[in-house]
Amino acid sequence: MGTILALDKDVSGKNASDLVAAVDLGSNSFRMVVAQVVQTPSGTQLRPIDTLRESVRLAAGLTDNKLLGNEAYQRGITAIRRFGERIRGFDPSKIRAVATNTLRVAKNASSFIQEAEAALGFPIEIIAGVEEARLIYIGAAHEVPAVHGNRLVVDIGGGSTELIIGKGYEPKLMESLYIGCVSHSLRFFPKGNIDSHAFKEAELAARREIQVISGAYLKSGWKQVIGSSGTARALAELIADNNLGGQADSLTMGRVNGSSGLITREGLRALKKHLLKYEHISQVELIGLKDDRRSVWPGGLAIMIAVFEELGIESMEVTDAALRLGVLYDLLGRSQHDDMRFVTVEQFMQRYIVDREQAKRVGNLAAEFLAQLPKPEEESRADNIALLQWAANLHEIGLSISHNGYHKHSAYIAGNADMPGFSKNDQARLAALLIGHAGKLGKLANNPIFSDWRMLFCLRLAQVLCRGRSDGNLPKVKVSEHNGSYLVSLSKEWADEHPLTEFSLQKEAAEWERIGRPYSISLK
Amino acid sequence: MGTILALDKDVSGKNASDLVAAVDLGSNSFRMVVAQVVQTPSGTQLRPIDTLRESVRLAAGLTDNKLLGNEAYQRGITAIRRFGERIRGFDPSKIRAVATNTLRVAKNASSFIQEAEAALGFPIEIIAGVEEARLIYIGAAHEVPAVHGNRLVVDIGGGSTELIIGKGYEPKLMESLYIGCVSHSLRFFPKGNIDSHAFKEAELAARREIQVISGAYLKSGWKQVIGSSGTARALAELIADNNLGGQADSLTMGRVNGSSGLITREGLRALKKHLLKYEHISQVELIGLKDDRRSVWPGGLAIMIAVFEELGIESMEVTDAALRLGVLYDLLGRSQHDDMRFVTVEQFMQRYIVDREQAKRVGNLAAEFLAQLPKPEEESRADNIALLQWAANLHEIGLSISHNGYHKHSAYIAGNADMPGFSKNDQARLAALLIGHAGKLGKLANNPIFSDWRMLFCLRLAQVLCRGRSDGNLPKVKVSEHNGSYLVSLSKEWADEHPLTEFSLQKEAAEWERIGRPYSISLK
Repeated sequence: MGTILALDKDVSGKNASDLVAAVDLGSNSFRMVVAQVVQTPSGTQLRPIDTLRESVRLAAGLTDNKLLGNEAYQRGITAIRRFGERIRGFDPSKIRAVATNTLRVAKNASSFIQEAEAALGFPIEIIAGVEEARLIYIGAAHEVPAVHGNRLVVDIGGGSTELIIGKGYEPKLMESLYIGCVSHSLRFFPKGNIDSHAFKEAELAARREIQVISGAYLKSGWKQVIGSSGTARALAELIADNNLGGQADSLTMGRVNGSSGLITREGLRALKKHLLKYEHISQVELIGLKDDRRSVWPGGLAIMIAVFEELGIESMEVTDAALRLGVLYDLLGRSQHDDMRFVTVEQFMQRYIVDREQAKRVGNLAAEFLAQLPKPEEESRADNIALLQWAANLHEIGLSISHNGYHKHSAYIAGNADMPGFSKNDQARLAALLIGHAGKLGKLANNPIFSDWRMLFCLRLAQVLCRGRSDGNLPKVKVSEHNGSYLVSLSKEWADEHPLTEFSLQKEAAEWERIGRPYSISLK
Repeated sequence: MGTILALDKDVSGKNASDLVAAVDLGSNSFRMVVAQVVQTPSGTQLRPIDTLRESVRLAAGLTDNKLLGNEAYQRGITAIRRFGERIRGFDPSKIRAVATNTLRVAKNASSFIQEAEAALGFPIEIIAGVEEARLIYIGAAHEVPAVHGNRLVVDIGGGSTELIIGKGYEPKLMESLYIGCVSHSLRFFPKGNIDSHAFKEAELAARREIQVISGAYLKSGWKQVIGSSGTARALAELIADNNLGGQADSLTMGRVNGSSGLITREGLRALKKHLLKYEHISQVELIGLKDDRRSVWPGGLAIMIAVFEELGIESMEVTDAALRLGVLYDLLGRSQHDDMRFVTVEQFMQRYIVDREQAKRVGNLAAEFLAQLPKPEEESRADNIALLQWAANLHEIGLSISHNGYHKHSAYIAGNADMPGFSKNDQARLAALLIGHAGKLGKLANNPIFSDWRMLFCLRLAQVLCRGRSDGNLPKVKVSEHNGSYLVSLSKEWADEHPLTEFSLQKEAAEWERIGRPYSISLK
């Protein structure tokens, strides 16, 4: 873990001894990496200086009705509390904590995250599968020396499997499938029993999932295959330690190249043959089989075999820190104004043919209003202004579906689409602003989680004032807020000349009053 | 009503004395037109030979919680029963009955439609606002002599107002707004009271709705303005009969041109001034004011003034049969294989970048399966094959939002998008097939309205077999159904060579069994 990783961009003006940290709340284990950002003559580098790993087996603690059971829940919180101690006092902009599949699906995830954030001392984001895929690719691309041509990265996690094709540092195809080593082991080898029929079923079930994407992936092709999870690393080690690979040369080469091993088709076949000699997972004898992998590697093996079969892979290099390193590289990018979220919003504006002038008009005006309102200590105003402008840029994407109820369609898309760079929470906040930016407010007043009232006030007011869709003719508007009461002031003369806008402002005020939020309009 | 309308296409091979009929269940009145399709040397013409109109004021019977009150409900059914008598014995392919805004929003619309269909003896479609706009344009474009350049058509109905810009017979911009003469009169002139403040509010509320679209409409521009509803006709007649237009020349010209009157800005202003002399609708004295218009024309007047203001209109030609004539011309188009629905599906495949080869593969196979299944007397197999192929063409549109849960996104789009040519019921059936084409079946088993099980069986089976996304390698598959039990037969040899597909077929059978529908696979 002491390798020095070259960053592809220069980060000038940063303190040479800056520390950054990534926390990865996976379905099988929780991990943290603390790295030093080092300025060298050849550019900025990330030097991991500390790593923590806790085997929490969260996915195994998921009940049939998708609730995290109490034991897994407590194991998770305890682990996070230990992580929190290590990064106490860090600047929040230097930390990013992400949670993946099990917390995507657990119904009590929000209570878990709340408690976990208190234990960690920093916000935690649940990220979507495709965002996970993007970050994994970025991490793997930085860790394994580049080749000419496409790279395929396969990441078999505890609850999901990500498959990415990219070139250089740029992911191109990203998919996240609902198969993982923990969930697959629980499903096909319940109570640890092994038999060849169950193994066949496990392989076929995984192939069925992969089949959906294999056409596009095979068409795109690749020159290099990288396996990037704990499962891949464990399989590579089992093959090497038990001499099952048959290709000593490649194995050595793999290690020399900077990756931590190699998985071959032959090795997988040998592992499977060996596994099927036993009737129960607990009996399996293999050199290097760790206790915390014992119960989950058969599911991982079946998925890996399915990946090899469906995609016609012969061998795969292995690395294992992909997701958390990707999180760190992405974090550095954000601070360098290379935030993926801007790219995503730009792509969405193109895809849904947004009226850019109107989006800009509404976004700028809304941001101007937010700047006039009180800022509580805990609010990150810069983050909220970014979110508000993204909301303005996306508020009309729903028109691509239908004019009637377009705000609902905008919210549906923002809430459900793959939005690289955005966390699930970002997307939920965006979707709430979009559904609330027009029409009645009752839908948000009844939502106990919604708290972006100040931003919503700004967005709606900007939208009312810009409804004419033309520059010019906008009045000077002052806004203020006291104890949750809003005041909008503008010139009486202007209002008299624009009876339609005045009428709309009165309607807007009435709408806020209706949900018990005082809203006055002052004309002078 | 005896005018002969030129059709833009030749309908060869049709009986010269064919009768067709359109039923229009509007928010204010129900109407029916029966027309003769006449072959002449210059092409096919539609000659209206009978019209019925019943003032049912459905929108006025809508309660606050969006239920059709009993009186309006019964007025509606009684009117439809009379229509039914007139068209008894017609071939169903010669009739199209459509319902608009009030039945779009009424919560008890489905029970009303069920009873209404029994009374009429033919199916009734609830159409979306944009579909209504498209049909209105087609009707108006056939009725009013064409000009060079764009035409703007404005249709103020009882519950919604449609605004369309088109060229020739082709609509280009279509919008439906939630303002109508009945709903607006109820909202701003409750109990028939009139005052200038309320009238101003009514105007501004309407302008606010129109403002949203005025930018795009003004940019597109027009050479001709056509008002196409009962409201427009009534206003034109009031202006003419009471000498309020001030432009006798244009008025005469309008009538000569084949339209049934003219509305001028000056005339609207004079009507408003006259109306505001009174305190109650019942007192208003105007030559030609019909009793069944008396309570709803003030709302219609306010909306018309708002349209003139927002779009800068000076005068408007009037015609009034637009929607039902549009329905007839569209119906003729369908029988001439010029069905708008094919165009819409084609546009959606482009917009959502569908894998066309896969869509075709799945659609053809699904249609082949449906052809093998029993056909009940009442089923229109040709219509269902068309629907099944549209479903196959659209089944992957949700991938544009996200791979995970894409079938839900496909269904969301098909259920909510503006789909010209499709009725609301078409869209609901499509959406159900899309949400059901993958994943669990429980969601449809619990939906009491869903009945397209046979089509769903075909679509899902085709999708399982085509999952490899390549031509060739497909087995010969026979399907059959007895008393709701499905049987799928294919060669054992092929299945043995394709274990993944066989595995998927077994899963598919298990999924149907889970909802209590027997499903067997026979390998021979």
